[in-house]
Amino acid sequence: MAAGRRAGDPDTRGEIIAAARREFAEKGFDRTSLRGVARAAGVDAALVHHYFDGKNGLFLACIQVDFRVDQALARALRVPRDQVGSALIGFVVSVWDDPDRRSPLLALLRSVTTNAEVAAMMREGVVGTLLSQVLDAVQVPAGRRPETASLLMPQVVGLIMSRYVLRVEPLASMSAEEVADLMGPVAQFCLTRHDA
Amino acid sequence: MAAGRRAGDPDTRGEIIAAARREFAEKGFDRTSLRGVARAAGVDAALVHHYFDGKNGLFLACIQVDFRVDQALARALRVPRDQVGSALIGFVVSVWDDPDRRSPLLALLRSVTTNAEVAAMMREGVVGTLLSQVLDAVQVPAGRRPETASLLMPQVVGLIMSRYVLRVEPLASMSAEEVADLMGPVAQFCLTRHDA
Repeated sequence: MAAGRRAGDPDTRGEIIAAARREFAEKGFDRTSLRGVARAAGVDAALVHHYFDGKNGLFLACIQVDFRVDQALARALRVPRDQVGSALIGFVVSVWDDPDRRSPLLALLRSVTTNAEVAAMMREGVVGTLLSQVLDAVQVPAGRRPETASLLMPQVVGLIMSRYVLRVEPLASMSAEEVADLMGPVAQFCLTRHDA
Repeated sequence: MAAGRRAGDPDTRGEIIAAARREFAEKGFDRTSLRGVARAAGVDAALVHHYFDGKNGLFLACIQVDFRVDQALARALRVPRDQVGSALIGFVVSVWDDPDRRSPLLALLRSVTTNAEVAAMMREGVVGTLLSQVLDAVQVPAGRRPETASLLMPQVVGLIMSRYVLRVEPLASMSAEEVADLMGPVAQFCLTRHDA
Protein backbone atom coordinates (compact mmCIF):
# COMPACT_ATOMS: atom_id res chain seq x y z
CA MET A 1 0.00 0.00 0.00
CA ALA A 2 1.64 3.20 -1.19
CA ALA A 3 2.19 6.41 0.80
CA GLY A 4 1.33 4.74 4.09
CA ARG A 5 -2.42 5.04 3.56
CA ARG A 6 -4.67 2.49 5.21
CA ALA A 7 -8.20 1.35 4.63
CA GLY A 8 -9.16 2.85 7.98
CA ASP A 9 -7.83 6.33 7.17
CA PRO A 10 -10.98 8.49 7.13
CA ASP A 11 -9.79 10.66 4.22
CA THR A 12 -8.62 7.86 1.96
CA ARG A 13 -12.01 7.25 0.40
CA GLY A 14 -12.42 10.98 -0.29
CA GLU A 15 -8.96 11.20 -1.80
CA ILE A 16 -9.66 8.27 -4.12
CA ILE A 17 -12.85 10.03 -5.23
CA ALA A 18 -11.01 13.31 -5.82
CA ALA A 19 -8.38 11.48 -7.91
CA ALA A 20 -11.07 9.57 -9.81
CA ARG A 21 -12.85 12.83 -10.68
CA ARG A 22 -9.66 14.25 -12.14
CA GLU A 23 -8.99 11.03 -14.06
CA PHE A 24 -12.54 10.78 -15.44
CA ALA A 25 -12.51 14.45 -16.43
CA GLU A 26 -9.13 14.23 -18.17
CA LYS A 27 -9.34 10.81 -19.81
CA GLY A 28 -13.05 10.21 -20.22
CA PHE A 29 -14.90 7.26 -18.79
CA ASP A 30 -13.59 4.44 -20.93
CA ARG A 31 -9.89 5.34 -20.71
CA THR A 32 -9.94 5.68 -16.92
CA SER A 33 -8.77 2.57 -15.05
CA LEU A 34 -9.02 1.63 -11.37
CA ARG A 35 -5.27 1.09 -11.45
CA GLY A 36 -4.67 4.61 -12.79
CA VAL A 37 -6.95 6.13 -10.17
CA ALA A 38 -5.14 4.20 -7.44
CA ARG A 39 -1.80 5.50 -8.72
CA ALA A 40 -3.09 9.10 -8.86
CA ALA A 41 -4.44 8.81 -5.32
CA GLY A 42 -1.23 7.20 -4.05
CA VAL A 43 -2.96 4.05 -2.84
CA ASP A 44 -2.92 0.38 -3.73
CA ALA A 45 -5.39 -0.74 -6.41
CA ALA A 46 -6.78 -3.31 -3.94
CA LEU A 47 -7.91 -0.44 -1.72
CA VAL A 48 -9.91 1.10 -4.56
CA HIS A 49 -11.59 -2.30 -5.00
CA HIS A 50 -12.16 -2.43 -1.25
CA TYR A 51 -14.11 0.83 -1.27
CA PHE A 52 -15.86 0.72 -4.64
CA ASP A 53 -17.53 -2.00 -6.63
CA GLY A 54 -15.61 -1.68 -9.90
CA LYS A 55 -15.43 1.30 -12.24
CA ASN A 56 -19.19 1.84 -12.37
CA GLY A 57 -19.32 1.97 -8.58
CA LEU A 58 -16.39 4.40 -8.46
CA PHE A 59 -18.04 6.58 -11.07
CA LEU A 60 -21.33 6.66 -9.17
CA ALA A 61 -19.44 7.63 -6.00
CA CYS A 62 -17.89 10.56 -7.94
CA ILE A 63 -21.25 12.07 -8.76
CA GLN A 64 -23.11 11.05 -5.63
CA VAL A 65 -20.71 12.07 -2.84
CA ASP A 66 -23.10 13.44 -0.28
CA PHE A 67 -26.29 12.05 -1.75
CA ARG A 68 -27.75 9.13 -3.64
CA VAL A 69 -29.15 10.20 -7.00
CA ASP A 70 -32.21 7.96 -6.84
CA GLN A 71 -33.11 9.07 -3.31
CA ALA A 72 -32.53 12.74 -4.12
CA LEU A 73 -34.75 12.42 -7.19
CA ALA A 74 -37.46 10.71 -5.12
CA ARG A 75 -37.40 13.68 -2.72
CA ALA A 76 -37.51 16.18 -5.60
CA LEU A 77 -40.54 14.41 -7.05
CA ARG A 78 -42.64 14.81 -3.90
CA VAL A 79 -44.74 17.55 -5.52
CA PRO A 80 -48.29 17.74 -6.86
CA ARG A 81 -48.74 15.72 -10.06
CA ASP A 82 -48.96 18.82 -12.27
CA GLN A 83 -45.52 19.99 -11.09
CA VAL A 84 -43.57 16.78 -11.75
CA GLY A 85 -42.23 18.12 -15.10
CA SER A 86 -40.74 21.21 -13.45
CA ALA A 87 -39.41 19.14 -10.55
CA LEU A 88 -37.61 16.83 -12.98
CA ILE A 89 -36.02 19.70 -14.93
CA GLY A 90 -35.06 21.48 -11.68
CA PHE A 91 -33.47 18.28 -10.39
CA VAL A 92 -31.40 17.71 -13.55
CA VAL A 93 -30.15 21.30 -13.43
CA SER A 94 -29.33 21.11 -9.70
CA VAL A 95 -27.12 18.06 -10.28
CA TRP A 96 -25.39 19.41 -13.41
CA ASP A 97 -24.91 22.97 -12.11
CA ASP A 98 -22.64 21.60 -9.37
CA PRO A 99 -19.14 21.69 -10.92
CA ASP A 100 -17.90 18.75 -8.80
CA ARG A 101 -20.64 16.56 -10.20
CA ARG A 102 -20.67 18.02 -13.69
CA SER A 103 -17.05 17.23 -14.44
CA PRO A 104 -17.32 13.40 -14.20
CA LEU A 105 -20.76 13.49 -15.83
CA LEU A 106 -19.34 15.39 -18.81
CA ALA A 107 -16.63 12.73 -19.05
CA LEU A 108 -19.34 10.07 -19.19
CA LEU A 109 -21.22 12.05 -21.83
CA ARG A 110 -18.07 12.26 -23.97
CA SER A 111 -17.67 8.50 -23.78
CA VAL A 112 -21.31 7.93 -24.67
CA THR A 113 -20.71 9.20 -28.20
CA THR A 114 -17.81 6.80 -28.81
CA ASN A 115 -18.53 3.75 -26.69
CA ALA A 116 -21.64 1.62 -27.12
CA GLU A 117 -21.14 0.00 -23.71
CA VAL A 118 -21.17 3.36 -21.94
CA ALA A 119 -24.23 4.35 -23.98
CA ALA A 120 -26.00 1.19 -22.79
CA MET A 121 -24.99 1.92 -19.20
CA MET A 122 -26.39 5.46 -19.39
CA ARG A 123 -29.53 4.27 -21.17
CA GLU A 124 -30.25 1.57 -18.59
CA GLY A 125 -29.27 3.77 -15.65
CA VAL A 126 -31.25 6.81 -16.74
CA VAL A 127 -34.24 5.18 -18.40
CA GLY A 128 -34.38 2.04 -16.29
CA THR A 129 -33.90 3.65 -12.92
CA LEU A 130 -34.38 7.40 -12.86
CA LEU A 131 -37.02 8.04 -15.55
CA SER A 132 -38.93 5.11 -14.15
CA GLN A 133 -39.36 7.08 -10.90
CA VAL A 134 -40.67 10.04 -12.87
CA LEU A 135 -43.20 7.91 -14.72
CA ASP A 136 -44.34 6.51 -11.36
CA ALA A 137 -44.77 10.02 -9.98
CA VAL A 138 -47.40 10.86 -12.61
CA GLN A 139 -48.84 7.32 -12.70
CA VAL A 140 -48.24 6.77 -16.41
CA PRO A 141 -50.27 3.64 -17.32
CA ALA A 142 -48.18 0.55 -18.13
CA GLY A 143 -49.04 0.60 -21.85
CA ARG A 144 -47.81 4.20 -22.21
CA ARG A 145 -44.57 3.87 -20.29
CA PRO A 146 -42.08 2.96 -23.06
CA GLU A 147 -43.41 5.71 -25.33
CA THR A 148 -43.45 8.30 -22.54
CA ALA A 149 -39.88 7.40 -21.57
CA SER A 150 -38.92 7.84 -25.25
CA LEU A 151 -40.41 11.33 -25.11
CA LEU A 152 -38.85 12.26 -21.80
CA MET A 153 -35.31 11.07 -22.52
CA PRO A 154 -34.74 13.68 -25.27
CA GLN A 155 -35.89 16.39 -22.83
CA VAL A 156 -33.26 15.44 -20.26
CA VAL A 157 -30.41 14.67 -22.66
CA GLY A 158 -31.27 17.66 -24.88
CA LEU A 159 -31.28 20.01 -21.89
CA ILE A 160 -27.87 18.76 -20.74
CA MET A 161 -26.34 19.00 -24.23
CA SER A 162 -27.84 22.42 -24.94
CA ARG A 163 -27.04 24.07 -21.59
CA TYR A 164 -23.70 22.50 -20.65
CA VAL A 165 -22.09 21.40 -23.92
CA LEU A 166 -23.44 23.56 -26.76
CA ARG A 167 -24.11 26.46 -24.33
CA VAL A 168 -27.08 27.78 -26.24
CA GLU A 169 -28.24 31.16 -24.97
CA PRO A 170 -30.30 32.21 -23.13
CA LEU A 171 -30.58 28.64 -21.78
CA ALA A 172 -26.93 28.43 -20.67
CA SER A 173 -27.07 31.60 -18.55
CA MET A 174 -30.49 31.10 -16.97
CA SER A 175 -30.82 30.33 -13.26
CA ALA A 176 -31.99 26.86 -12.28
CA GLU A 177 -35.45 28.29 -11.57
CA GLU A 178 -35.69 29.97 -14.95
CA VAL A 179 -34.78 26.71 -16.70
CA ALA A 180 -37.44 24.84 -14.71
CA ASP A 181 -40.00 27.54 -15.61
CA LEU A 182 -39.05 27.34 -19.29
CA MET A 183 -38.73 23.59 -19.81
CA GLY A 184 -40.91 22.28 -17.00
CA PRO A 185 -44.17 22.72 -18.96
CA VAL A 186 -42.66 20.86 -21.93
CA ALA A 187 -41.64 17.92 -19.72
CA GLN A 188 -45.10 18.02 -18.13
CA PHE A 189 -46.69 17.97 -21.60
CA CYS A 190 -44.64 14.85 -22.43
CA LEU A 191 -45.69 13.17 -19.18
CA THR A 192 -49.40 13.87 -19.34
CA ARG A 193 -50.26 14.21 -23.02
CA HIS A 194 -52.35 11.04 -22.96
CA ASP A 195 -54.43 12.04 -19.95
CA ALA A 196 -58.08 11.65 -20.80
CA MET B 1 -0.82 16.28 -58.01
CA ALA B 2 -0.79 12.62 -56.94
CA ALA B 3 -2.23 9.67 -58.86
CA GLY B 4 -2.73 11.67 -62.04
CA ARG B 5 -6.00 13.23 -60.87
CA ARG B 6 -6.89 16.65 -62.17
CA ALA B 7 -9.23 19.37 -61.08
CA GLY B 8 -11.35 18.72 -64.15
CA ASP B 9 -11.85 15.02 -63.44
CA PRO B 10 -15.59 14.69 -62.83
CA ASP B 11 -15.21 12.07 -60.08
CA THR B 12 -12.45 13.81 -58.15
CA ARG B 13 -14.79 15.94 -56.05
CA GLY B 14 -16.88 12.88 -55.18
CA GLU B 15 -13.80 10.88 -54.26
CA ILE B 16 -12.55 13.65 -51.98
CA ILE B 17 -15.94 13.66 -50.26
CA ALA B 18 -15.92 9.86 -49.86
CA ALA B 19 -12.43 10.04 -48.34
CA ALA B 20 -13.45 12.93 -46.07
CA ARG B 21 -16.45 10.96 -44.79
CA ARG B 22 -14.22 8.07 -43.82
CA GLU B 23 -11.72 10.41 -42.16
CA PHE B 24 -14.37 12.33 -40.23
CA ALA B 25 -16.02 9.08 -39.11
CA GLU B 26 -12.75 7.51 -37.99
CA LYS B 27 -10.95 10.48 -36.46
CA GLY B 28 -13.72 12.84 -35.46
CA PHE B 29 -14.06 16.38 -36.68
CA ASP B 30 -11.18 18.06 -34.90
CA ARG B 31 -8.52 15.46 -35.70
CA THR B 32 -9.37 15.38 -39.41
CA SER B 33 -7.13 17.58 -41.57
CA LEU B 34 -7.48 18.70 -45.19
CA ARG B 35 -4.00 17.29 -45.77
CA GLY B 36 -5.03 13.88 -44.40
CA VAL B 37 -8.17 13.84 -46.54
CA ALA B 38 -6.10 14.75 -49.62
CA ARG B 39 -3.71 11.90 -48.86
CA ALA B 40 -6.57 9.42 -48.38
CA ALA B 41 -8.16 10.53 -51.66
CA GLY B 42 -4.83 10.39 -53.51
CA VAL B 43 -4.95 14.06 -54.53
CA ASP B 44 -2.94 17.16 -53.80
CA ALA B 45 -4.04 19.22 -50.78
CA ALA B 46 -4.34 22.25 -53.07
CA LEU B 47 -7.09 20.44 -54.96
CA VAL B 48 -9.09 19.97 -51.77
CA HIS B 49 -8.76 23.71 -51.19
CA HIS B 50 -9.79 24.31 -54.78
CA TYR B 51 -13.09 22.45 -54.32
CA PHE B 52 -13.97 23.25 -50.71
CA ASP B 53 -13.69 26.33 -48.57
CA GLY B 54 -11.67 24.93 -45.67
CA LYS B 55 -12.61 22.14 -43.28
CA ASN B 56 -16.06 23.53 -42.49
CA GLY B 57 -16.85 23.67 -46.19
CA LEU B 58 -15.62 20.13 -46.72
CA PHE B 59 -17.67 18.93 -43.78
CA LEU B 60 -20.81 20.59 -45.10
CA ALA B 61 -20.22 18.97 -48.48
CA CYS B 62 -20.04 15.57 -46.74
CA ILE B 63 -23.51 15.87 -45.30
CA GLN B 64 -25.11 17.83 -48.11
CA VAL B 65 -24.01 15.91 -51.20
CA ASP B 66 -27.18 15.98 -53.23
CA PHE B 67 -28.98 18.70 -51.33
CA ARG B 68 -28.45 21.87 -49.35
CA VAL B 69 -29.62 21.48 -45.77
CA ASP B 70 -31.12 24.95 -45.51
CA GLN B 71 -33.04 24.60 -48.80
CA ALA B 72 -34.24 21.09 -47.93
CA LEU B 73 -35.46 22.34 -44.54
CA ALA B 74 -37.25 25.27 -46.19
CA ARG B 75 -39.09 22.77 -48.43
CA ALA B 76 -39.94 20.53 -45.47
CA LEU B 77 -41.39 23.50 -43.60
CA ARG B 78 -43.92 24.35 -46.34
CA VAL B 79 -46.78 22.96 -44.27
CA PRO B 80 -49.69 24.49 -42.34
CA ARG B 81 -48.52 26.31 -39.21
CA ASP B 82 -49.88 23.64 -36.86
CA GLN B 83 -47.73 20.96 -38.53
CA VAL B 84 -44.36 22.75 -38.35
CA GLY B 85 -43.33 20.78 -35.24
CA SER B 86 -43.88 17.43 -36.97
CA ALA B 87 -42.22 18.68 -40.14
CA LEU B 88 -39.12 19.68 -38.16
CA ILE B 89 -38.88 16.31 -36.39
CA GLY B 90 -39.49 14.44 -39.66
CA PHE B 91 -36.76 16.48 -41.35
CA VAL B 92 -34.17 15.81 -38.61
CA VAL B 93 -34.92 12.07 -38.77
CA SER B 94 -34.76 12.00 -42.59
CA VAL B 95 -31.26 13.51 -42.54
CA TRP B 96 -29.93 11.35 -39.69
CA ASP B 97 -31.53 8.09 -40.88
CA ASP B 98 -29.36 8.27 -44.02
CA PRO B 99 -26.16 6.38 -43.08
CA ASP B 100 -24.01 8.40 -45.50
CA ARG B 101 -25.01 11.60 -43.76
CA ARG B 102 -25.17 10.20 -40.26
CA SER B 103 -21.58 9.02 -40.16
CA PRO B 104 -19.94 12.49 -40.52
CA LEU B 105 -22.64 14.05 -38.33
CA LEU B 106 -21.88 11.56 -35.56
CA ALA B 107 -18.22 12.51 -35.90
CA LEU B 108 -19.17 16.15 -35.42
CA LEU B 109 -21.32 15.26 -32.41
CA ARG B 110 -18.39 13.40 -30.84
CA SER B 111 -16.19 16.47 -31.27
CA VAL B 112 -18.86 18.74 -29.80
CA THR B 113 -18.39 17.18 -26.37
CA THR B 114 -14.63 17.77 -26.35
CA ASN B 115 -14.08 20.88 -28.45
CA ALA B 116 -15.59 24.26 -27.59
CA GLU B 117 -14.93 25.56 -31.11
CA VAL B 118 -16.92 22.75 -32.70
CA ALA B 119 -19.67 23.34 -30.12
CA ALA B 120 -19.80 26.99 -31.15
CA MET B 121 -19.92 26.02 -34.83
CA MET B 122 -22.84 23.65 -34.25
CA ARG B 123 -24.61 26.17 -32.02
CA GLU B 124 -24.30 28.96 -34.57
CA GLY B 125 -25.08 26.70 -37.51
CA VAL B 126 -28.09 25.03 -35.98
CA VAL B 127 -29.53 27.86 -33.92
CA GLY B 128 -28.45 30.74 -36.12
CA THR B 129 -29.41 29.25 -39.45
CA LEU B 130 -31.70 26.24 -39.25
CA LEU B 131 -33.80 26.88 -36.13
CA SER B 132 -34.21 30.44 -37.32
CA GLN B 133 -36.11 29.10 -40.36
CA VAL B 134 -38.36 27.08 -38.05
CA LEU B 135 -39.14 30.13 -35.91
CA ASP B 136 -39.96 32.05 -39.09
CA ALA B 137 -42.32 29.29 -40.22
CA VAL B 138 -44.54 29.76 -37.14
CA GLN B 139 -43.96 33.53 -36.96
CA VAL B 140 -42.57 33.55 -33.44
CA PRO B 141 -42.58 37.21 -32.35
CA ALA B 142 -39.12 38.81 -32.04
CA GLY B 143 -39.27 39.04 -28.24
CA ARG B 144 -39.94 35.29 -27.91
CA ARG B 145 -37.34 34.04 -30.37
CA PRO B 146 -34.32 33.46 -28.10
CA GLU B 147 -36.44 31.65 -25.51
CA THR B 148 -38.23 29.55 -28.14
CA ALA B 149 -34.92 28.59 -29.75
CA SER B 150 -33.70 27.56 -26.27
CA LEU B 151 -36.73 25.29 -26.00
CA LEU B 152 -36.41 23.85 -29.48
CA MET B 153 -32.70 23.09 -29.42
CA PRO B 154 -33.05 20.42 -26.69
CA GLN B 155 -35.79 18.76 -28.79
CA VAL B 156 -33.51 18.38 -31.79
CA VAL B 157 -30.30 17.52 -29.93
CA GLY B 158 -32.14 15.27 -27.47
CA LEU B 159 -33.83 13.38 -30.31
CA ILE B 160 -30.50 12.81 -32.06
CA MET B 161 -28.72 11.67 -28.89
CA SER B 162 -31.59 9.43 -27.77
CA ARG B 163 -32.30 7.76 -31.13
CA TYR B 164 -28.83 7.50 -32.69
CA VAL B 165 -26.36 7.50 -29.79
CA LEU B 166 -28.11 6.17 -26.67
CA ARG B 167 -30.53 4.11 -28.82
CA VAL B 168 -33.40 4.36 -26.37
CA GLU B 169 -36.28 2.05 -27.27
CA PRO B 170 -38.87 2.24 -28.69
CA LEU B 171 -37.55 5.55 -30.14
CA ALA B 172 -34.52 3.96 -31.86
CA SER B 173 -36.58 1.38 -33.77
CA MET B 174 -39.51 3.60 -34.78
CA SER B 175 -40.03 4.60 -38.40
CA ALA B 176 -39.47 8.24 -39.33
CA GLU B 177 -43.24 8.76 -39.38
CA GLU B 178 -43.72 7.26 -35.95
CA VAL B 179 -41.03 9.55 -34.52
CA ALA B 180 -42.68 12.59 -36.12
CA ASP B 181 -46.05 11.49 -34.69
CA LEU B 182 -44.54 11.01 -31.23
CA MET B 183 -42.30 14.07 -30.94
CA GLY B 184 -43.99 16.44 -33.40
CA PRO B 185 -46.64 17.57 -30.90
CA VAL B 186 -43.93 18.30 -28.31
CA ALA B 187 -41.99 20.44 -30.79
CA GLN B 188 -45.24 22.15 -31.78
CA PHE B 189 -45.97 22.83 -28.10
CA CYS B 190 -42.52 24.47 -27.77
CA LEU B 191 -43.13 26.60 -30.86
CA THR B 192 -46.61 27.83 -30.04
CA ARG B 193 -46.89 27.79 -26.25
CA HIS B 194 -47.11 31.56 -26.11
CA ASP B 195 -49.86 31.88 -28.67
CA ALA B 196 -52.63 33.97 -27.20
